[in-house]
Amino acid sequence: MSSFRERNDRNKSGASSVRSPRPGSPRPPHQAHRKYGGGDPDQWVWGWHAVEAALRNPDRPAPKKILATEDRAKQISQLRGEDGRPLGIDLSVEIATPAEIATAVPQGASHQGVALQTPPLESADLFAFIAEPQGVLIMLDQVTDPQNVGAIFRSAAAFGARGVILQDRRAPPLAGALAKAAAGALERLPCAQVTNLSRAIEELKAAGWRVIGLAGDAPERLDNALSDDPTLLILGSEGEGLRRLVSEKCDVLAHIPMPGGFESLNVASAAAVALYAASLKRF
Amino acid sequence: MSSFRERNDRNKSGASSVRSPRPGSPRPPHQAHRKYGGGDPDQWVWGWHAVEAALRNPDRPAPKKILATEDRAKQISQLRGEDGRPLGIDLSVEIATPAEIATAVPQGASHQGVALQTPPLESADLFAFIAEPQGVLIMLDQVTDPQNVGAIFRSAAAFGARGVILQDRRAPPLAGALAKAAAGALERLPCAQVTNLSRAIEELKAAGWRVIGLAGDAPERLDNALSDDPTLLILGSEGEGLRRLVSEKCDVLAHIPMPGGFESLNVASAAAVALYAASLKRF
Repeated sequence: MSSFRERNDRNKSGASSVRSPRPGSPRPPHQAHRKYGGGDPDQWVWGWHAVEAALRNPDRPAPKKILATEDRAKQISQLRGEDGRPLGIDLSVEIATPAEIATAVPQGASHQGVALQTPPLESADLFAFIAEPQGVLIMLDQVTDPQNVGAIFRSAAAFGARGVILQDRRAPPLAGALAKAAAGALERLPCAQVTNLSRAIEELKAAGWRVIGLAGDAPERLDNALSDDPTLLILGSEGEGLRRLVSEKCDVLAHIPMPGGFESLNVASAAAVALYAASLKRF
Repeated sequence: MSSFRERNDRNKSGASSVRSPRPGSPRPPHQAHRKYGGGDPDQWVWGWHAVEAALRNPDRPAPKKILATEDRAKQISQLRGEDGRPLGIDLSVEIATPAEIATAVPQGASHQGVALQTPPLESADLFAFIAEPQGVLIMLDQVTDPQNVGAIFRSAAAFGARGVILQDRRAPPLAGALAKAAAGALERLPCAQVTNLSRAIEELKAAGWRVIGLAGDAPERLDNALSDDPTLLILGSEGEGLRRLVSEKCDVLAHIPMPGGFESLNVASAAAVALYAASLKRF
């Protein structure tokens, strides 16, 4: 089963195709943000929560292969949709030992007896957010660690965000370690992968979104900057922060107050705090 | 250099010895929380921020060995204390290639050209918190993932918590992946490692600490439960939550409101939110 590993290793480009716009939706003239990278699109998702959520996600293409221990295969066969009907997984599960499954996923990955190989999750269409400015969106600028991005999906789903916006390049694939860390949230939250973050910000602003960039050296406190307007929160990488072209597009830059004198948060922790603070303005 | 790996691998017990009480401090009669596990105490710390912070920490015992690339060795030799004087690191740095350093740390660890082997960081004395009920403490019940615990140290330092309380068994060593994820915060924040969390809670309560346990099914909202009283926040593991014996000792159980309907946060994200919410009551 070593070929699994090889396929997975070739999939680090995070390639994703575009989800079709809703029929009848008007399109903005500029569509550059809907181009996506290339590369071998096969990817693996592992761990029970992540796999179960992937199988339940109607927007995820049918898996190419499912590897599971006997117990997990039984659990999969018993999965029911919200209507109580079997999920209708149109692929038989390959029974495998934990050691065999381990050869399909990265070394040390906690697969919990189940892994599936899937075509990439399609990008959500940014236009859905442009057409309906409401709630909170989170955008990540150069955040590349899949564990952090996965945890951010989880926080975004927990605090009721509308969706996540990533750059199509420089973002980890919507599978693998990211899916595992997201514990199912990846399948619940639309994720728009865009080519140009600055342009996406411009389009969202024009549609009525208020754009708040997180910056440690900004004078304004995040809790004061937040409102119940439709809000796009943007976080940069831990080392670099927001890139200049991104931060210049923000309506306001704000900092999370850190009275401890140790001004350094893990980016997923910072995102959780920002999403929580934003949800307090709404709920 | 394979012996480094072997030593490090033998150090998973998280053993730590006790830091001496301050001279003249009265002692509570019960000291069971000051017993610690055994095992080989050598541990590694890697990554520039973590190593630099370890070298600057006057409470950390002198390192047994420092491996560094030439550039990092130069950086280490240029480190100055707050008084502008050289740190006086009483150990010569062994120049090593990145590949050699990689053999001393776990596979895939991002050592950034530097690693040090250190005796374990001594546990802070719980009595320091008992004697001075003030501010916010965070206690972790069965949280074992070193990345999460490290990120929680970072959030605790950022949001001005007084310290961290862990169980001496079932907690990761105060080094390695935890130190890397803490990005230096491990060296700034006292960490008391106690044998019995329930007993530590009792002692802190008796001293005037208000104890808030995080529990998803608790009716009270965390932001309503918090006050500016001396506050001990307790978080359990993601799967299990607080153990019964721990949750029964809490003055109040409270939940982080998650209006998204996806009631699942990474434990480090939950801790960041709780520490942020607690800091809002103070600053």
